[in-house]
Amino acid sequence: MATNEHTGGNGSSRFDPTFTSRVIKTMGPNMEPRTRQVLSSLITHIHDFAREVELTHDEWMAGVHFINSVGQTSTKTRNEAHRVSDVLGLESLVDEIANKIIAEDGDIDPTSSSILGPFWSPDAPFRDNGSTIIQNPNPHGRVCKMHGTITDLVTGKPIPGAVFDIWQASANGKYDFQDPENQTPNNLRGKFRTDENGKYWLYCYHPTAYSLPTDGPAHQLLTLMDRHPMRPAHIHIMVTHPEYKGCTTQLYPKDDPWLETDTVFAVKDDLVVDFKPYKDDKATLELEYNVFLSPKGYKGKVFQ
Amino acid sequence: MATNEHTGGNGSSRFDPTFTSRVIKTMGPNMEPRTRQVLSSLITHIHDFAREVELTHDEWMAGVHFINSVGQTSTKTRNEAHRVSDVLGLESLVDEIANKIIAEDGDIDPTSSSILGPFWSPDAPFRDNGSTIIQNPNPHGRVCKMHGTITDLVTGKPIPGAVFDIWQASANGKYDFQDPENQTPNNLRGKFRTDENGKYWLYCYHPTAYSLPTDGPAHQLLTLMDRHPMRPAHIHIMVTHPEYKGCTTQLYPKDDPWLETDTVFAVKDDLVVDFKPYKDDKATLELEYNVFLSPKGYKGKVFQ
Repeated sequence: MATNEHTGGNGSSRFDPTFTSRVIKTMGPNMEPRTRQVLSSLITHIHDFAREVELTHDEWMAGVHFINSVGQTSTKTRNEAHRVSDVLGLESLVDEIANKIIAEDGDIDPTSSSILGPFWSPDAPFRDNGSTIIQNPNPHGRVCKMHGTITDLVTGKPIPGAVFDIWQASANGKYDFQDPENQTPNNLRGKFRTDENGKYWLYCYHPTAYSLPTDGPAHQLLTLMDRHPMRPAHIHIMVTHPEYKGCTTQLYPKDDPWLETDTVFAVKDDLVVDFKPYKDDKATLELEYNVFLSPKGYKGKVFQ
Repeated sequence: MATNEHTGGNGSSRFDPTFTSRVIKTMGPNMEPRTRQVLSSLITHIHDFAREVELTHDEWMAGVHFINSVGQTSTKTRNEAHRVSDVLGLESLVDEIANKIIAEDGDIDPTSSSILGPFWSPDAPFRDNGSTIIQNPNPHGRVCKMHGTITDLVTGKPIPGAVFDIWQASANGKYDFQDPENQTPNNLRGKFRTDENGKYWLYCYHPTAYSLPTDGPAHQLLTLMDRHPMRPAHIHIMVTHPEYKGCTTQLYPKDDPWLETDTVFAVKDDLVVDFKPYKDDKATLELEYNVFLSPKGYKGKVFQ
């Protein structure tokens, strides 16, 4: 429970000091304790917010209309509530909370996590190491050979058989299911399994910065806040293995202009990477990216 | 701004203390100051809530799905976001904030306000004093003669020409536009104009308690909180006059079993009324209800 339930922000003493606790007390006995905790805190913060800013009827009604419009904009391939919570920083914060494990010393840190975002697909196919995720070439795409090693955070040994799941927008800034005219399903998606040395290697694109959709409530909210809708260019990865805690994250080219003001607050320093010039028969760029996983249940050198 | 932005609730020191201010600082310079104030406070409280309960990814995603479902349940005649904010107490709180005018002494109080609710209609017809709002009799309806005087809070004199707008559910617990099979438009709605003595009089029903709809997200939320969906029986009124501050409120029979646990928290002590036995050719009950209005701009005896 918040400690400021009955005092709130500016001027809240002008208002009934018992109201919030009366609302919370109407909850019945047959409730999960965790649900009671979460909803009591949520109600307290909603009320404290309203008292703190002395929310007007018109502002409240604007919020009501906004929330209705969020659901009405969502479809099977568009999750507007997800996007709104992203532009408010909530998914990134939830990700931080979930991944509060920090290596006790600075020698080996687990790879930073970042948000999943709304574009991951459970249907991405397995592909062989050395193959490409580019099914539908885009004339502006710059092909990159990406490779690295998945390593045990504790032993420092490579992890064979880890699944390296990668997805990215094409060079027009759109993911496959946003762009059925130009992309076939699973274009720029794929799962790779690390070899006996914990290594993966594949071809993808240097990522392209893109704008969130500009036709819905999330963009209305950004406009209201005088914020741009741009995400820095990024590659999504999700690395899993049955014996390790998974890592979902995003990688950003170091020269991207939107790193500081990412519209969903998902950039972290150690996720900014350097694409290097390279030359083989497929690629003109190279990216080496190594991932560290911590064993499930391991708490020895880790805060928790 | 909340004073606890960087400290939050339990355990928040485990999390990046700069995150919330970084999100707020991405707002641009071209923003209404009031919008900046409201959204900064909203973002701070959302983040503090998430840190305080250490919101999990699954809980956050349940919230995302819930918000999408709210908008998808709303239609032209059903405002689910309005209803959800009502069951969380928010409309009642916004009403309290808006109507913080309190008479300085106990001699004459302005009539307490209560929430508008989602069933007011701008299209209710004017009717003559002495007429009925019952267009479609319900066999379980108990007809009541309702009457009273609209009085100036400061001078104590009656207010001629005030508009007394009344609406209520029928004896089946449904409003006209929820019940097109049994009710014609504007059944149990009407506007009356006070006579030269500030008096109105009309026939209506003794009100009937009813359940909020049980097929949508608001009811899912009530179920999660182990709360009932009942509103105590009530009559809505909205009293207006060009020279006075309007009053929107609800009146509740004193013997209603749901007064203490109204699902939208709209009951106030001075809005609980006594229906008395009565006998004329139309009615078996009588309700006298007098309303006090304060002049627009008047601050003499009133806190503000």
